[in-house]
Amino acid sequence: MIRQAPFQVEPWCLRESTLDLDFIAQSESVFALSNGHIGWRANLEEGEPHGLPGSYLNGVYEERPLPYAEAAYGQPESGQAMINVTNGKLIRLLVDDEPFDVRYGELRSHQRILDFRSGTLHRSAVWTSPSGRTVRLQASRLVSFTQRAVAAISYQVEPLDDAAHIVLQSELVANEQLPPGGWDPRAAAVLEAPLRSEEHAGQSGQAILIHKTRRSGLRLAVAMQNQVACPADTRQETEAAPDVARHAISAQLQPGQRLHLLKLVTYGWSGVRSLPALRDQVEGALVAASHAGWGGLAAQQREYLERFWDRADVELDGDAEIQQAVRFGLFHVLQAGARAEDRAIAAKGLTGTGYDGHAFWDTEIFVLPVLTWTTPQAAAHALRWRRATMPKATDRASQLGLRGAAFPWRTIDGAECSGYWPAGTAAFHVNADIADAVISYTDATGDHEFTRRTGLDLLTATARLWRSLGKHDPGGSFGIDGVTGPDEYTALADNNVYTNLMAQRNLNAAADAAELHADRAQELGVSSREIASWRAAARSILVPYDEQLGVHPQSAGFTRHQMWDFKATSADQYPLMLHFPYFDLYRKQVVKQADLVLAMQLRPDAFTSEQKARNFAYYERLTVRDSSLSACSQAVLAAETGHLRLAYDYLGEAAMMDLADLQHNTRDGLHLAALAGSWIALVVGFGGMRWRHGVLEFSPRLPPALTRLAFTVVSGGRRLRVEAAGQAVSYALAGDGPALEIRHHGERLLLSAGGAAQTRPIPALPEGPELAQPPGREPVRRVPSLPAKPSRTPGCR
Amino acid sequence: MIRQAPFQVEPWCLRESTLDLDFIAQSESVFALSNGHIGWRANLEEGEPHGLPGSYLNGVYEERPLPYAEAAYGQPESGQAMINVTNGKLIRLLVDDEPFDVRYGELRSHQRILDFRSGTLHRSAVWTSPSGRTVRLQASRLVSFTQRAVAAISYQVEPLDDAAHIVLQSELVANEQLPPGGWDPRAAAVLEAPLRSEEHAGQSGQAILIHKTRRSGLRLAVAMQNQVACPADTRQETEAAPDVARHAISAQLQPGQRLHLLKLVTYGWSGVRSLPALRDQVEGALVAASHAGWGGLAAQQREYLERFWDRADVELDGDAEIQQAVRFGLFHVLQAGARAEDRAIAAKGLTGTGYDGHAFWDTEIFVLPVLTWTTPQAAAHALRWRRATMPKATDRASQLGLRGAAFPWRTIDGAECSGYWPAGTAAFHVNADIADAVISYTDATGDHEFTRRTGLDLLTATARLWRSLGKHDPGGSFGIDGVTGPDEYTALADNNVYTNLMAQRNLNAAADAAELHADRAQELGVSSREIASWRAAARSILVPYDEQLGVHPQSAGFTRHQMWDFKATSADQYPLMLHFPYFDLYRKQVVKQADLVLAMQLRPDAFTSEQKARNFAYYERLTVRDSSLSACSQAVLAAETGHLRLAYDYLGEAAMMDLADLQHNTRDGLHLAALAGSWIALVVGFGGMRWRHGVLEFSPRLPPALTRLAFTVVSGGRRLRVEAAGQAVSYALAGDGPALEIRHHGERLLLSAGGAAQTRPIPALPEGPELAQPPGREPVRRVPSLPAKPSRTPGCR
Repeated sequence: MIRQAPFQVEPWCLRESTLDLDFIAQSESVFALSNGHIGWRANLEEGEPHGLPGSYLNGVYEERPLPYAEAAYGQPESGQAMINVTNGKLIRLLVDDEPFDVRYGELRSHQRILDFRSGTLHRSAVWTSPSGRTVRLQASRLVSFTQRAVAAISYQVEPLDDAAHIVLQSELVANEQLPPGGWDPRAAAVLEAPLRSEEHAGQSGQAILIHKTRRSGLRLAVAMQNQVACPADTRQETEAAPDVARHAISAQLQPGQRLHLLKLVTYGWSGVRSLPALRDQVEGALVAASHAGWGGLAAQQREYLERFWDRADVELDGDAEIQQAVRFGLFHVLQAGARAEDRAIAAKGLTGTGYDGHAFWDTEIFVLPVLTWTTPQAAAHALRWRRATMPKATDRASQLGLRGAAFPWRTIDGAECSGYWPAGTAAFHVNADIADAVISYTDATGDHEFTRRTGLDLLTATARLWRSLGKHDPGGSFGIDGVTGPDEYTALADNNVYTNLMAQRNLNAAADAAELHADRAQELGVSSREIASWRAAARSILVPYDEQLGVHPQSAGFTRHQMWDFKATSADQYPLMLHFPYFDLYRKQVVKQADLVLAMQLRPDAFTSEQKARNFAYYERLTVRDSSLSACSQAVLAAETGHLRLAYDYLGEAAMMDLADLQHNTRDGLHLAALAGSWIALVVGFGGMRWRHGVLEFSPRLPPALTRLAFTVVSGGRRLRVEAAGQAVSYALAGDGPALEIRHHGERLLLSAGGAAQTRPIPALPEGPELAQPPGREPVRRVPSLPAKPSRTPGCR
Repeated sequence: MIRQAPFQVEPWCLRESTLDLDFIAQSESVFALSNGHIGWRANLEEGEPHGLPGSYLNGVYEERPLPYAEAAYGQPESGQAMINVTNGKLIRLLVDDEPFDVRYGELRSHQRILDFRSGTLHRSAVWTSPSGRTVRLQASRLVSFTQRAVAAISYQVEPLDDAAHIVLQSELVANEQLPPGGWDPRAAAVLEAPLRSEEHAGQSGQAILIHKTRRSGLRLAVAMQNQVACPADTRQETEAAPDVARHAISAQLQPGQRLHLLKLVTYGWSGVRSLPALRDQVEGALVAASHAGWGGLAAQQREYLERFWDRADVELDGDAEIQQAVRFGLFHVLQAGARAEDRAIAAKGLTGTGYDGHAFWDTEIFVLPVLTWTTPQAAAHALRWRRATMPKATDRASQLGLRGAAFPWRTIDGAECSGYWPAGTAAFHVNADIADAVISYTDATGDHEFTRRTGLDLLTATARLWRSLGKHDPGGSFGIDGVTGPDEYTALADNNVYTNLMAQRNLNAAADAAELHADRAQELGVSSREIASWRAAARSILVPYDEQLGVHPQSAGFTRHQMWDFKATSADQYPLMLHFPYFDLYRKQVVKQADLVLAMQLRPDAFTSEQKARNFAYYERLTVRDSSLSACSQAVLAAETGHLRLAYDYLGEAAMMDLADLQHNTRDGLHLAALAGSWIALVVGFGGMRWRHGVLEFSPRLPPALTRLAFTVVSGGRRLRVEAAGQAVSYALAGDGPALEIRHHGERLLLSAGGAAQTRPIPALPEGPELAQPPGREPVRRVPSLPAKPSRTPGCR
């Protein structure tokens, strides 16, 4: 499953030193830059060759019809697909009239470095044209964390051996031709020419294109400014047409002379603002960017990231590749959410059009925990986005005959876009997942103003949903029938344990919050009777248990189903959904992704240690991990139940998901949940961190390979650093403020801010007996990667 | 729900005396003619106004893509839709250059009579044109039972008050313009211009059009011959173009002079035969038809039907409307199946494009019982069609990872065309339904040659399917998980009682047949070990039972689900599937159509009398009858459990389904299963007829309104007449052959062929307590309809 990652192992950057055209789409994803508002895939500046050209704006989508062979009530008829917006990255280069194109001539050297501390992507290349001219090219680009509308490219070219005539064409291109979409249902639908021109203008190195999407009616504006520095004479020309604006620079350079171009690009979009308003917005942003210049933008970027790593870094000794991967993951999670600002964090961030650019429950259960504990304001923004979509969720609930809000399974703007309801609408757990993120955010920050304004609305609406979705049976138990849990290889089952336990927490949290903010609750029409009904449902929630096997069935009856015939399933029949009908998957014991195991991760209080061990062993035999959302949770439970070696293997799988392209679709965009998953596997798994009822608990336990694990999380504005090494762990609280109570393997510790670290021994945990996985689906036994020798080429700055 | 039927109540025909344009599409369906090969909707000869023009050939379809919002393994990508073939019914009439069109001028009288004994549709009209010319028109048409390729129209027009210039244009028209399709998912997709011309020719009153369907590649030929008789001079002209052939007749008629046209039309199609072969086929058929002439065709038709009614008629006293309706139903069931000859019998026969012209399980469970006991050779043909499609069913099983054959949920040519798998592919019971029809046919006919050649293949392939679909649990019980039973408001449930009991019979019957025809079984690779595995599975079949409630859950866990909130459901929210999501329907206790009740009808041996009574009462409260497949089975169980008054109400609903347009979609074609259902309600319900292990059982019990019920069924070639009147019933066996053993309320009777009738008393059965149905979904309390006074207008001949 794993192939050799094409990247060098370095702690603070990701480097490729050759340009493999078979791998170009994957590299466009892993080197993508984003600030959560703008997303630029790492397409070469010259535009071609490319895997998938991609420039994205969070929230800009086009509608597309959702067709059905047979109509049915309540099926969404219109879907949404993130579109490739105006490409501002393009800088075409001509060398003595020959286009720079690595498919011709000779690429003598190539290097790209994504630097996690500077937040920039550096590229350098030396190329000899078919007619024998050699040039060196250096480009750095960034998508600014501090100036949300701004991206920039610093581009420099020099002839090496002989004089050369150099032409640069710095462009904005709308409605780019895209390669045709593939057959894989997980790949995005390609929408051709979705933009209608509204305005174009260009002069003196500056240009603007304004478009509107045809059906969704969103207006977007893109502006550029080109600043040229060159020792030789240049001739420059700016022109604009509806779908293309171009600034051309022509110069005759001697060897050693460098033509430098700083291209500043600003983006804006709106569903409501007028054309002049949007034009002024992007042109204003251009003034600010120009004021900062490349130096200013790069310095702000570095400073922003310095603060981020201070509060978020995870350090480890013993596996240099994982060290790199977890930082790579944290960097991309930050990129996806940093400046999303009341917009969704999609499953692939803004790195590709996979899953049509939709956001799923991944956001709340995988991505937000990382942001909540490292960059809480970004988590708050993501939850405010959910709150902003509540009118659509309320309408959807009402269409389904339910109360409260039914949040969509997949969406861009909040409308349900799932075209297969058994694994879409029926996966109601997304609502409890949102509530869980609200609860965690409140626990982590103590931000009661957020709870009053946003959290209570979300908790109330989702609690109402559960109350109307479930029912008390004659014996009084509260059950929820016919829903789909996280595992997409089972659908429409009764009393999915994950769903019921998460609904239980949702109901209790809504009751608590309504009582805490009684005035706001009253505004929402919450009566004490309603609160009591939530508590009654939560108290009597039904959790099926198979007494005979001594395990929890994932949902009622699950453990009585036929076992999947793993022996008869060959390696090339995975992922199973591409080779077997849902019919057969649903009715047998086979698990796509952690479901009951995820329930044990998120509701550790609902299971005894013995149950956790038995359940984990049982579901290990059934879980095929055809989803990227599984390995990290399996790592967490493996660690908790004493399978540290196995947990380490799962950590490796989560961490290498995109760097090693384990699911063969990194080309469509990164797996943000798996990227977040390496943090989860380390911090929640080996750090044993849980957060329940406002108290942080840690039960660190390191696998043999890892000699040290240190991480920082932010709690109530204070930075808590946890460092486990050998048989001991130390806890230290940085910053000001009150003391923080935590638990270490159950023991209560009080940490004073700025005080000395407290050190505790790590209790021994014998490695449990080997567990079995479905044949051929065992995680790859991870071999620790030792640090590489320091690179001789210039590294990360 | 019931509105006044627009037809006069007469025992042997269906008559309309006004032409209601709002009702025209419905009347086109109820007056449709067919022989199972050709279908002609009752469009007016002049072509317009029309509801839905319709000429159909059994098996002629076009492919259409089946779109999905999200792709999945095993979804059929291409569907099939029955198409409107070349219209041979058209005879345009011009009166002094004004087209005869009832929307203009004045229709002074109109009458149509469908005569169940002559098998013809008569029409007469008197019309005054806008300019004041009055003509009388008389037309009779038939689709021949005896000459399968032939349809004919005898058409006569005469001026009444003044002389008139009459022009007739007798046409063949391909690719007719059709009205746009509606929103209702049950209505057919309209396929525009599906026919590509291959040949056209016409001269001397005779013409032919040959076309091929664009995608499915089926060739069809239609020929006509026009024979004119007229006392006045006529000018005649024949011409042909690719999509239209026309024979025009012009005559100046005096009052009293009649222009008579006999139009003979022949149809043929093939997926393999060459154009010349097909041309010769239809032209040859035209020679035979011409040889017979109208008189000959009409006489053959009457004779064919005389034999049919002799062996199939159901007579009753006490409700004249039901008497008419059951004959109407029998007539249409015969029309659908008489000459289908190794083609499907579609859910709507050849009366309209509803359900795309697909055949479902309706055929085997509702239509075939009627044919099996009255016209067994037609039932054999239908089953031979299933056998012929077995290669497709075997491929489908293999695609689904199963053994044996998986017959399609809906199809024309045997390929699965269902685009919604939870209520399509998952409804595996269709396979046991086919087996049930094989078993019944064998029981009724003793046709062992059929079993050897056809039946064994079907029984073996379906038994293999069940064996691979189900599994023995650790306790040894054989269960079948994740399937959909007859009730489409529950899906993907474990151990559906209907499915399991029907699979049980299927497995046992396959074992019996394989042992009986051991040589053929060996050819099919059936080992004694395999037979033993079938018997073992059948012996230990799992039938869930709810001990607490003392009823059978329809499927495992069903009775623990939440009750549908019937009180909150308004009358205009039915059918529920158009107003509620499947999600909610599936997870609650609400039943679209008889499921457990149908299990009790078809597997009476698997339930005690007490269980039947309790189960029936339980499911009555839940069954909303949003399907036309329900009322007859409810009638049967109501009768068996002592609710004769209720059974009578359900009989009324089944019988009046199309005559009163109870489901508001008779316009799309007739509900053949409901038409067959009036026979089932009477014969199986009030006659108490069951057939198990080769022995016919009767337990007649009449509701108060019906004073007499007599019916004939064919068993082993002998006609058994059963006549229940008052408190007694008589059994008489006509024809030659061995004696027949039957049961009367459990008592064994031996009837000798040609012997005297044996009379037995009907045991009293006290009317049970009132049962409850979902509020608003009670069947209409039936008021017996008294015979109408004999009509003064000319009646059925």
